[in-house]
Amino acid sequence: MEKMKSRITLSLFLVFLSMSSVHPMKPKKQYKPCKHLVLYFHDIIYNGKNAANATSAIVGAPEGANATILAGQFHFGNVVVFDDPITLDNNLHSAPIGRAQGLYIYDTKNTYTSWLGFAFLLNTTDYQGTIIFNGADPIMVKTRDIAVVGGTGDFFMHRGVATIMTDAFEGEVYFRLHVDIKFYECW
Amino acid sequence: MEKMKSRITLSLFLVFLSMSSVHPMKPKKQYKPCKHLVLYFHDIIYNGKNAANATSAIVGAPEGANATILAGQFHFGNVVVFDDPITLDNNLHSAPIGRAQGLYIYDTKNTYTSWLGFAFLLNTTDYQGTIIFNGADPIMVKTRDIAVVGGTGDFFMHRGVATIMTDAFEGEVYFRLHVDIKFYECW
Amino acid sequence: MEKMKSRITLSLFLVFLSMSSVHPMKPKKQYKPCKHLVLYFHDIIYNGKNAANATSAIVGAPEGANATILAGQFHFGNVVVFDDPITLDNNLHSAPIGRAQGLYIYDTKNTYTSWLGFAFLLNTTDYQGTIIFNGADPIMVKTRDIAVVGGTGDFFMHRGVATIMTDAFEGEVYFRLHVDIKFYECW
Repeated sequence: MEKMKSRITLSLFLVFLSMSSVHPMKPKKQYKPCKHLVLYFHDIIYNGKNAANATSAIVGAPEGANATILAGQFHFGNVVVFDDPITLDNNLHSAPIGRAQGLYIYDTKNTYTSWLGFAFLLNTTDYQGTIIFNGADPIMVKTRDIAVVGGTGDFFMHRGVATIMTDAFEGEVYFRLHVDIKFYECW
Repeated sequence: MEKMKSRITLSLFLVFLSMSSVHPMKPKKQYKPCKHLVLYFHDIIYNGKNAANATSAIVGAPEGANATILAGQFHFGNVVVFDDPITLDNNLHSAPIGRAQGLYIYDTKNTYTSWLGFAFLLNTTDYQGTIIFNGADPIMVKTRDIAVVGGTGDFFMHRGVATIMTDAFEGEVYFRLHVDIKFYECW
Repeated sequence: MEKMKSRITLSLFLVFLSMSSVHPMKPKKQYKPCKHLVLYFHDIIYNGKNAANATSAIVGAPEGANATILAGQFHFGNVVVFDDPITLDNNLHSAPIGRAQGLYIYDTKNTYTSWLGFAFLLNTTDYQGTIIFNGADPIMVKTRDIAVVGGTGDFFMHRGVATIMTDAFEGEVYFRLHVDIKFYECW
């Protein structure tokens, strides 16, 4: 009986310790991912001259804009479809391990932000399947979190959070995103 | 021992009571949200004349229509990008607590319905993070449920259902939605 | 005792058999759906001449293309909004039990693939509610898995995987999809 009591005391103490280790004003739970992937993807925006190697295309635009050049006002209203290579490192010319496919829309008039709806289609010996992403991307912020809302194949029923970071941005034509995918529900 | 027995009996009785309170033909489980938010967001549709204060823009249209005026046939085929202020009450001029960003598409020819893909970006002392929404919106129905498919920050890994209600609709230019967000998976 | 032993041996043998039926290098867990639906939906693509009975419309297109005819290069960049009837069998003229509404975008230059964002709105005596889909659709592959990321009504908080199969494809105007929806999280 005494033993049990002391065990309970110890447990409560450990609970207290783990809670006190987070921010005192707004305690947050810390979860450990059940699966973790770090990948890059590369977007070459069509600009009217690079049809051969562009990986994305403007397909929607607000009044007065067109599908050749991104619109003014922080591209507000542009809808872009993409099919971007995914690589393990930050080199555009590394062998792609899959494709990032979907769309982004620029959705603010006074800064660069976008809404993202896309999938990773992975096809390697390690991973076969798709990862489905959805979320808001305030592009000018250093790291942005979006939701991983589902998956198939090796990512069957998975959910999680992906942290996106702009790893390079060159001349409004090429950008590279560093994506840190943390799954918290793995099945 | 007797006490425990009677407790079990009472518990079973309460379970029975709570089950009998739902529809007899099609019993549905009643879940209690683990988090609950009621918010408003305000959309000012661009109509060719209100560029300065419009919060949304037509960016896709079917053949014969354009990005200035919503298409005929219940706007079927119009794609609209928006960046709308979110407020705690129904006043457009209240201090926004965040932005609703994403797109809606009108997707029926014989009534007003839309498909929604958007995020709430909240930035207050109470809530910091994003809530990701996805779903079908049969606009003419009084209350419509859409899915909350994920979240980040204070809404990390959250899921739930949001009930949307059109709170105002003025002259095909302004509409206000009342959004009752019930999270059932909170982490 | 001997009997039990042999039963255990048999059970282990059956487990071994069932595991050996999957890829030997990468054993996969097998889950049983908690709900299962098999449905068809029917898409009649607008082609400039069939306005009366088309169920979808091109609403976004890359530079040089338009909203009347699907673009070249495997329709890369086309955004299509649809409102398709859902039926229980493969007959377009069967009584619809609901509508499939949302959008698909063609997102590859060298084959047919699309990103899908849509909802099923079901309204029958058996099922009332919406099912929300999101995912990548490599159209030329026989069966493709997409994610079921949420639901409302009878599909409240559901998640799962839907296997899509092109059941018919006629003259770039009509296609029919066979959708096998397996829910693994039912509430």
